[in-house]
Amino acid sequence: MKKDDCIFCKIANGEIPSDTVYEDDKYRAILDLSPAVKGHTLIIPKDHFDDLLSADEETLESVLKLAQRIGAAQLKALKCDGFNVVQNNGEAAGQTVHHLHVHIIPRYNGGAKMVAWEQLKSEPEEQQKIAGEIKAAL
Amino acid sequence: MKKDDCIFCKIANGEIPSDTVYEDDKYRAILDLSPAVKGHTLIIPKDHFDDLLSADEETLESVLKLAQRIGAAQLKALKCDGFNVVQNNGEAAGQTVHHLHVHIIPRYNGGAKMVAWEQLKSEPEEQQKIAGEIKAAL
Repeated sequence: MKKDDCIFCKIANGEIPSDTVYEDDKYRAILDLSPAVKGHTLIIPKDHFDDLLSADEETLESVLKLAQRIGAAQLKALKCDGFNVVQNNGEAAGQTVHHLHVHIIPRYNGGAKMVAWEQLKSEPEEQQKIAGEIKAAL
Repeated sequence: MKKDDCIFCKIANGEIPSDTVYEDDKYRAILDLSPAVKGHTLIIPKDHFDDLLSADEETLESVLKLAQRIGAAQLKALKCDGFNVVQNNGEAAGQTVHHLHVHIIPRYNGGAKMVAWEQLKSEPEEQQKIAGEIKAAL
C-alpha cells in the first residue's frame, strides 16, 4: 500500500526520479542524495511501512537478502573495504523520512568509520536489571 | 557451525556468561558490555558467520524478525523513543568482532542520535555514474 503524501512512496514507485541501482516488484534501491560516503545506497520497499515495527513478514524476510547483494556489489564496484547496514526507527534515532528504509554505506580503510558512538561503562547489577526488563517485555 | 577461537561463538552458545535478553535454538540476544546507550542489545547467531556476506539464507530471513521484537521490547521496557538497527561489515565499517551481529540501540528524544554522519553534496553526473557501477556489479 502506498501513502499519498510520502516522498519515499513516490520515489520507490518511480513517480519521482532517482539514481536507481536496483528495482524489482517489491523494492527500489537508490543512491542517497546526501550520502555519508559516495555510493551510499538506500533500499526502499514499494509498500509503505513507517518503520521496522510496522514492516510485514515478507519485508522482514527479504530485505537483508537485498542488503547482502548490494553490499557485495559496493565492494566490487567501489572497491570499498566494508559497509554498514543501518536502519533507524523514530526521530530520536535519526529517522528523517517516515517510510522504512535501509542504508548501505560503503566504508574504506583509514576513512571515517560509521559508528562513532561513545562506549559507556556498564555496571553488572544494572546490566542484569536492564536485561530482565527487556526480557520481560518480549 | 561454531568457530573455536571466536568469542561470540562462545557467548552465543553459553560458554561465556552474558546478560541475555533472549535465546532460542538459533540466536542469543545480549546486552552490549560497552553500550552506546543503556539497554544496547546485540543479536548474535549461534552459528558462526563472519559478516552479512557469509550469512546463510535462514539467518537473513529471520534476524530482522527478532530485531523487530527486541526494538518493540526496548520501547516498552526502557520507554525509549526510537531505536537504531546497525550491522557493520569489515574493520573499515567499525566491525570489531568478526562474528555477524546486529546492534539494537535505544534512542531518546533530545539524546544523542545514532548516526552523526556528515552529509556530502552529490553531483548528478557523478551519482549516475556510481549508480551505474553498482548496478553493473549486482
